[in-house]
Amino acid sequence: MKFIIKRDRLVQAVNEVSRAISSRTTIPILTGIKITVNDEGVTLTGSDSDISIEAFIPLIDNDEVIVEVESFGGIVLQARYFGDIVRRLPDENVELEVVSSYQTNIRSGQASFTLNGLDPLEYPKLPEVTDGKKIILPINVLKNIIRQTVFAVSAIEVRPVLTGVNWLIKENLLTAVATDSHRLALREIPLETSLEEDYNVVIPGKSLSELNKILDDASESIEMVIANNQILFKLKDLLFYSRLLEGSYPDTSRLIPTDIKSELVINSKSFLQAIDRASLLARENRNNVIKLSTLESGQVEVSSNSPEIGNVSERVFSQQFSGEELKISFNGKYMMDALRAFEGDDIVISFAGTMRPFVIRPKDATNPNEILQLITPVRTY
Amino acid sequence: MKFIIKRDRLVQAVNEVSRAISSRTTIPILTGIKITVNDEGVTLTGSDSDISIEAFIPLIDNDEVIVEVESFGGIVLQARYFGDIVRRLPDENVELEVVSSYQTNIRSGQASFTLNGLDPLEYPKLPEVTDGKKIILPINVLKNIIRQTVFAVSAIEVRPVLTGVNWLIKENLLTAVATDSHRLALREIPLETSLEEDYNVVIPGKSLSELNKILDDASESIEMVIANNQILFKLKDLLFYSRLLEGSYPDTSRLIPTDIKSELVINSKSFLQAIDRASLLARENRNNVIKLSTLESGQVEVSSNSPEIGNVSERVFSQQFSGEELKISFNGKYMMDALRAFEGDDIVISFAGTMRPFVIRPKDATNPNEILQLITPVRTY
Repeated sequence: MKFIIKRDRLVQAVNEVSRAISSRTTIPILTGIKITVNDEGVTLTGSDSDISIEAFIPLIDNDEVIVEVESFGGIVLQARYFGDIVRRLPDENVELEVVSSYQTNIRSGQASFTLNGLDPLEYPKLPEVTDGKKIILPINVLKNIIRQTVFAVSAIEVRPVLTGVNWLIKENLLTAVATDSHRLALREIPLETSLEEDYNVVIPGKSLSELNKILDDASESIEMVIANNQILFKLKDLLFYSRLLEGSYPDTSRLIPTDIKSELVINSKSFLQAIDRASLLARENRNNVIKLSTLESGQVEVSSNSPEIGNVSERVFSQQFSGEELKISFNGKYMMDALRAFEGDDIVISFAGTMRPFVIRPKDATNPNEILQLITPVRTY
Repeated sequence: MKFIIKRDRLVQAVNEVSRAISSRTTIPILTGIKITVNDEGVTLTGSDSDISIEAFIPLIDNDEVIVEVESFGGIVLQARYFGDIVRRLPDENVELEVVSSYQTNIRSGQASFTLNGLDPLEYPKLPEVTDGKKIILPINVLKNIIRQTVFAVSAIEVRPVLTGVNWLIKENLLTAVATDSHRLALREIPLETSLEEDYNVVIPGKSLSELNKILDDASESIEMVIANNQILFKLKDLLFYSRLLEGSYPDTSRLIPTDIKSELVINSKSFLQAIDRASLLARENRNNVIKLSTLESGQVEVSSNSPEIGNVSERVFSQQFSGEELKISFNGKYMMDALRAFEGDDIVISFAGTMRPFVIRPKDATNPNEILQLITPVRTY
């Protein structure tokens, strides 16, 4: 293998595939980046066996020569060293050459590195994901779906399926649900592509978080293909594979209360700021408990008390309150996570009583499942 | 105590004094910020007993009312909570009021906090530093002196005096020296103020690093007063006290070699970049060993070898090399620290042989002690 490549393109690809690489892997070769070159271009691969990322650099892009190939081949180089090296190389071009027994020369300007590599044939094969029908979504929509649900997955592995986000695709409607059994985040969106098949998969929360970091806030579209136990996200020159979680996701629809006793209309941004302030003292307690009380004036009072440190209370103007007066306590962190999903818009919080889960939706939602955040209260009264 | 204050001024002062506060203090009251108000303004104090910082907020500044005082007094509030709270308050004004038994109300907009405080009379007194003669330095000069020496202090407490920077003031010349016994950094600068007295003090490296973070890159001047076991740095509305280290600082002048055998003139920036690249592999080894060899072409070769990982070599153009040919090894991190002191300028490296310390100075220095960096080589040949 021998080729010359533009340094900035190599750096970009190394940064992208490095997101999949974990230093804590039990498979030593997966601490490396696989580099292969053929008559189409250079391909870099990184994987932790749950997530695999493949970045492609074409020989020519926009009439500019990106890669000059002298001989085809491949190598696996330690991600940690290779990444640090290419980021610091002095010249705009980099030459990579496998010399003998996987020793690889990296030359740029006056600098010359030799790294001990590994046999690329030993690198695990990427999953084959070719069967499924393509689903197409604008990137910014996908990023929103991820952001509005992924924080609610379970952080503990007791029920592994809850560490993922359930994607249910049925009659051209995508429903994404995440719950850790104390709170639930749900987002529903119609798909533009017409799909004959239904899908019901659980994508690891960690995969979606990493994917979200790679994606630019672009209006271009991303292609997704769902296969047996894998989902593939396809961008121009980038493939992102994630393992799917096994096991059936619980039916969460019956958790959502329908017998609403009070409703509060409020701005999510000003409410979030008040909760954030109240959490400053509440975070010292188990559960980060914050109390919400309705006042006669149409205001609501947010408060928290930590006997050792002090207490805080704040009145927040609501746009409307109807139904039974209310005193309810909840985890301040859960509330902040949920409120951030509404990006400052006005919201309706529907309460079914002090001890029943309550639900937050956009004020002007036409579909009650467009964005739905559910939180189970904490017993304090 | 009761007053109303502009939030942004309070936040700034809290941020400044918080730099002195350590959560690991053994004196509980020092986890707090002391706040006092009198007819001149509000004073905030933070301290870890080595460093103490006092920030003053005047009642009126630039014809703007900053503080409205209702009653004088003081309180000590937990730095951690008080800081987080004032940074997040909703309104541009904040009201502070000590209610009873050190309970303090903090009100801003609709938000109202109560924090449990402590008796300000229990807070340790700041050192009295009034005797000494004032030394005046432009802030950017002081920042340079700190930056060019403080990294070379010893990180280990075996010889406590080496964890500080020695400031020697004699005949209106300030000489700052730091050494960890493997390397040495020295900076000499004439003072504009005429001082009758000589001073020989050791300032803790940590104090100087913290001071450097507080100082803006301003061209204004800073006043310094040296007393018995304290140094005081005085800015407009800010006092920074540091304890001085006890014990006499070793005489380092005899460490600097005078029998030079070879001299290398090179640009510090391009040399630093080459060392940085070579360190990518060297950092895995004990001592981060990098080799420098002179070549016949007038170039020098920087190289490093880590058998497990690989090796690196790079030729760097020198502007001039004179004297004996040379192969020498040194700690790459020490070399990078030293080179950064020259801020990209051309330098002269003077070698006294493979096993003797070598010295780096600016190429165009008129005073040989203007900036001097000394490094002891590592034995590898």
